Amino acid sequence: MVDNLYALIMAGGGGTRLWPMSRQAHPKQMLKLVGDRSMFQLAVDRLVPLLPHARILVVTAGEQVEGLAAQVPELPRENFIVEPLGRGTASCIGLAALHLHRRDPGAVMAVLTADHYIRRTDRFREVLRAAHQVAEEGYLVTLGIEPTHPATGYGYIRRGAGLGQAGDFDYYAVEAFVEKPDAERALAFLAAETYAWNSGMFIWRTQVILDAIAGLMPDLDATLTALGAALDAGEYASALAERWPALKKETIDYGIMERAERVAVIPVDLGWSDVGAWDAVMALRDADDAGNALSGDVIALDTENSMIMAEGQRLVTAIGVRDLVVVDTPDALLISRRNQTQRVRDVVQRLREAGRDILL
Amino acid sequence: MVDNLYALIMAGGGGTRLWPMSRQAHPKQMLKLVGDRSMFQLAVDRLVPLLPHARILVVTAGEQVEGLAAQVPELPRENFIVEPLGRGTASCIGLAALHLHRRDPGAVMAVLTADHYIRRTDRFREVLRAAHQVAEEGYLVTLGIEPTHPATGYGYIRRGAGLGQAGDFDYYAVEAFVEKPDAERALAFLAAETYAWNSGMFIWRTQVILDAIAGLMPDLDATLTALGAALDAGEYASALAERWPALKKETIDYGIMERAERVAVIPVDLGWSDVGAWDAVMALRDADDAGNALSGDVIALDTENSMIMAEGQRLVTAIGVRDLVVVDTPDALLISRRNQTQRVRDVVQRLREAGRDILL
Repeated sequence: MVDNLYALIMAGGGGTRLWPMSRQAHPKQMLKLVGDRSMFQLAVDRLVPLLPHARILVVTAGEQVEGLAAQVPELPRENFIVEPLGRGTASCIGLAALHLHRRDPGAVMAVLTADHYIRRTDRFREVLRAAHQVAEEGYLVTLGIEPTHPATGYGYIRRGAGLGQAGDFDYYAVEAFVEKPDAERALAFLAAETYAWNSGMFIWRTQVILDAIAGLMPDLDATLTALGAALDAGEYASALAERWPALKKETIDYGIMERAERVAVIPVDLGWSDVGAWDAVMALRDADDAGNALSGDVIALDTENSMIMAEGQRLVTAIGVRDLVVVDTPDALLISRRNQTQRVRDVVQRLREAGRDILL
Repeated sequence: MVDNLYALIMAGGGGTRLWPMSRQAHPKQMLKLVGDRSMFQLAVDRLVPLLPHARILVVTAGEQVEGLAAQVPELPRENFIVEPLGRGTASCIGLAALHLHRRDPGAVMAVLTADHYIRRTDRFREVLRAAHQVAEEGYLVTLGIEPTHPATGYGYIRRGAGLGQAGDFDYYAVEAFVEKPDAERALAFLAAETYAWNSGMFIWRTQVILDAIAGLMPDLDATLTALGAALDAGEYASALAERWPALKKETIDYGIMERAERVAVIPVDLGWSDVGAWDAVMALRDADDAGNALSGDVIALDTENSMIMAEGQRLVTAIGVRDLVVVDTPDALLISRRNQTQRVRDVVQRLREAGRDILL
């Protein structure tokens, strides 16, 4: 029934919000943040009851292929698509659609992420089945996460008219994509019940997304057409190296979704988190009776509501600690009040300004 | 005038209260806790305006001689007296008195510590001059620290009748040595104004302390007499190795001071601290406008009233931290609420029970 469904896991990107564990050479998707599986491994794990590894594609940067392939050796090596450098999600998705469409012109493609967490993996697979069905009708489908709190850190999708049902999901026309709101608007969005968080997960037929690119992003379309010809001519590598850097950086949201016709949203509760900072990691981990999530070599006395990750091959001891996040690595240590972990970006900024690239 | 005054710096002892910086092999007296001089170096520094290095003796454990000698190369090597193992301060002081008395039978000996801090170093030298004068009258002199708060962590000395003046110091008969009090009694002691903290610093003629040992500690006296004979016979090393372990452990307070006659106390304000835990170290260090004492490679954002010592060859970052002590070393990290640093001993106890001696 979903034999033509393929997953594309976007696993490029550096990301420094989980510094000091996440680094250029060891980005978030490779980290084991929850349990003993990395974010990338979890992204594959939650798919395989639905899809064989052969239909899971990965798009990433060249220097990350080895590390990711080692984490999931079951993935065929030809399923890794390399982006020479990041040119935004539109280009990334267009490139993957080009390759996939040549392999299976009837393909339905689920664009997924490796750096988000999904707790309700059964529900995730159910919504992919439903989205597959809607995509087969020609829609560009986006998954909207039903808000659980007035988040100001996400973009929102406002839904319009109901379009129908797939499985036990309702799907709707998209009325607008809305930028990250301030706190007041976020409260209003939560109350309105017609807004969902923009998860960055999409499902569509490759034919439909390639047609949309042809109609709305002529530069990208020209590049993809040229790359298709280069593939036929056996000149793909040089053509990619030449043409890719010239592309304008663009997101799929701005380049396609906000302007395309026949865009549908399926609201769903997935227990989803974008794992955007250390406090979000803490929220995902099991806490002990004192509210602590401790891992590695830790001795904690009279310590509460704290997360301590001892990843530095050293003993970490805590006495009388409250509401802290401690992340220890061999060359850098972070101690942050739990509600200020987003300020890690300020630390990273300082390191960048000081030219301390070895720590980034 | 003080040509017969010698200092004996007691610099043995392990001490784990400043773990993870203080270790068996790197005890407190070798640490640079305030500024760039170690506690042992500071103990010598504050003496040299009064005494030449030639008259500063050090008693310590064999494995610490090299490290201490390297820290103060001006000290003659023959001034290091090695205690085979710790047998309490009475034995330690008796051994030093034996050696010093053979060198200068008219010596006055100031028994001092390497693991306490003294801010008012001028006053310290003044009180040594005064104590020298009182010691020449045949007294066993102890320095009493005038209390600044109702401390429960120190023993106290209750003074009796005034005995006279030396320099601008009054000295008194000692009425009693008092064990560490509870909070209520400590308050009463502070109010009474006749109590001083027992600093563990003493001044006496070697003849007087040796006579006191002969009268009050016959076992120790017999050992010292035998060691004196062994020195004459060139058999000191073997005699020491044989006899020392058989000595009963005893403090000078209990063995001599609490029972001797002609004991005098000189109360003095020295800006003294026993540096008994990390919060005491913090109190000694200069704080910046935010109340922080930071050293090493530290980035601190929105951090207040905290001490961070980055001694682990790594970057330490703090965000939104309040009232913490952070001590980072290459193999162990301590994060403690500032008012709970005395619980370091519980951490050390756990390590001991777990047989993790490499961290001790």
